Amino acid sequence: MSIKKINIVTVGGGTGSYTVLSGIKTIKNTSISAIVSMADNGGSTGDLRDELGVLPPGDVRQCLVALSEHTDIVRKLINYRFDNGKLSGHSFGNIFLAALEKVTGSFAKGVEIVSEILKVRGTVIPATNNKAELVAILKNGKKIYGQVEIDKTDFQKNPLKKIFYKNKVKLNPRAKEAVLSSDYIIIGPGNFYESIVPNLIIDGFTTAIKKTKGKVIFMMNLTNKHGHTGYWNASDYVQNIENYLNRKVDIILINNVSPSKAQIKRYQLKEGDGVLIKDDMQDDERVMRSALISHSFFNKEKSDARAQARSFIRHDSQKIAECVMKILK
Amino acid sequence: MSIKKINIVTVGGGTGSYTVLSGIKTIKNTSISAIVSMADNGGSTGDLRDELGVLPPGDVRQCLVALSEHTDIVRKLINYRFDNGKLSGHSFGNIFLAALEKVTGSFAKGVEIVSEILKVRGTVIPATNNKAELVAILKNGKKIYGQVEIDKTDFQKNPLKKIFYKNKVKLNPRAKEAVLSSDYIIIGPGNFYESIVPNLIIDGFTTAIKKTKGKVIFMMNLTNKHGHTGYWNASDYVQNIENYLNRKVDIILINNVSPSKAQIKRYQLKEGDGVLIKDDMQDDERVMRSALISHSFFNKEKSDARAQARSFIRHDSQKIAECVMKILK
Repeated sequence: MSIKKINIVTVGGGTGSYTVLSGIKTIKNTSISAIVSMADNGGSTGDLRDELGVLPPGDVRQCLVALSEHTDIVRKLINYRFDNGKLSGHSFGNIFLAALEKVTGSFAKGVEIVSEILKVRGTVIPATNNKAELVAILKNGKKIYGQVEIDKTDFQKNPLKKIFYKNKVKLNPRAKEAVLSSDYIIIGPGNFYESIVPNLIIDGFTTAIKKTKGKVIFMMNLTNKHGHTGYWNASDYVQNIENYLNRKVDIILINNVSPSKAQIKRYQLKEGDGVLIKDDMQDDERVMRSALISHSFFNKEKSDARAQARSFIRHDSQKIAECVMKILK
Repeated sequence: MSIKKINIVTVGGGTGSYTVLSGIKTIKNTSISAIVSMADNGGSTGDLRDELGVLPPGDVRQCLVALSEHTDIVRKLINYRFDNGKLSGHSFGNIFLAALEKVTGSFAKGVEIVSEILKVRGTVIPATNNKAELVAILKNGKKIYGQVEIDKTDFQKNPLKKIFYKNKVKLNPRAKEAVLSSDYIIIGPGNFYESIVPNLIIDGFTTAIKKTKGKVIFMMNLTNKHGHTGYWNASDYVQNIENYLNRKVDIILINNVSPSKAQIKRYQLKEGDGVLIKDDMQDDERVMRSALISHSFFNKEKSDARAQARSFIRHDSQKIAECVMKILK
């Protein structure tokens, strides 16, 4: 008799999804689908988007690597960033996905082929097959185009009115299917307006997540992002997420161990005060608290300095896995 | 009882080896090793050599694709050439091999990993692990550096004295082993001074090929190259090869069907007269004659225009395979 697998869907992009997926892929009898934001237009990814007209490969690449069961070398290869000549700054995996999109004529098909080559455990699903260009409109009427510019905009000085896509961006039917057949949906962690919200505002996402019988787990970030979510408390995240989702989340995972003083200092130097998220949800029974923080500094290839820079205070994959396992029981 | 496989080694590089390998990989009960010249310094390969300091991936890439048993899409991917932006002109496979050399620290290890990913039937062996820079010294004393410049030099106006490597270039131990344990060694077809000779002048090659009990098959080119081998007859090739090898070849395969008039005209426009090789070896019992020419024009991806340009009169893989099968019986 075959055991029915538990369907887990993650929603996010970039380093946050990488960390969650690296953890939960070790949980037995699960089937994992990673829904990944397609809004990135920065760095190597942005250059490839601009120069080759392909969909943004960066976040998908990180999820593929997280779920790959291939040798370490192949995983290193995918993250390898050229540091000389015309290829300088490009990660090999991004070039890989761009070339496959060109050869197959479809980003989704390219992701399938890379998944096979990388022996990916699970499925990585681009949130949309459409070109996804973010627009933020501020309360003062100004419009900000693209994730890179949104990243630089201080919404706390110039409050955000709405974030949306320039064109019609429809939920990938495979993402819809994954949400509808899920047992658990893990949203986050990740940069709120750049990795989380870009998934939630896709046409069809909220409809799917209202219909599903899957439980929605919100994995709280560890730190606030200055200018975007500075001084937010835990309840601010939950309220914002629920506004976007148009439904309640079922479980809220909050880290309950403080980062080291050195880590906090490093963050404050870069981000100013208001970087730590205050847990103000004592009375909310949906909250599960656990030690989720990593005590080791990110130990990636030197060439992936971009990833390194944003990863000083981060979740621990193994601790996430243990916490999720408790929920599944 | 397991059947002992017949060990076939090919020696060459580029399109010639691609064609032979595509054919002989269909022959059952054979173990194939492709020894590939490392002297290329042109095009995408040359740029990667210069900018990243890697070994030249181009010829190896073609052999890997020839022997790959993966889907057509993966083979197309490896040959895909970017046509926009900073990556323009680079074939994906070359970038792939360059990245793997960077990640593993060894070109040979990189080739192994790509071979696994591409499900390569057989082994592709770089002829050397050393940086291989060709030098041609002319009878007038002038020295020509690198394959690209050698390609442009007219040895028929300015006769060649000697072709050699700038530094010590040693035979890859795995190539030596392949030659020593071979049953058959197929040399050619290929550009004489650019794909064939660069293998034969590697330190250790002639010693290995004198020691082996394998039979040496010389697969004659279909056309002469203006300025290098213009007006050569079949016997000129054999004599030259044997001078380099310092031994006799055992079998000589000569095509005995004329190209179409249109094909000849196209070649003569580019190369002038003396392009067809006259078969002047009627009395030599080592010669096997067969229809080896392809009647279809090369049908590669548009993006691989470089390969297309050099492939108007070419061998037919299947006909090569049939001819080699007769020899193996």
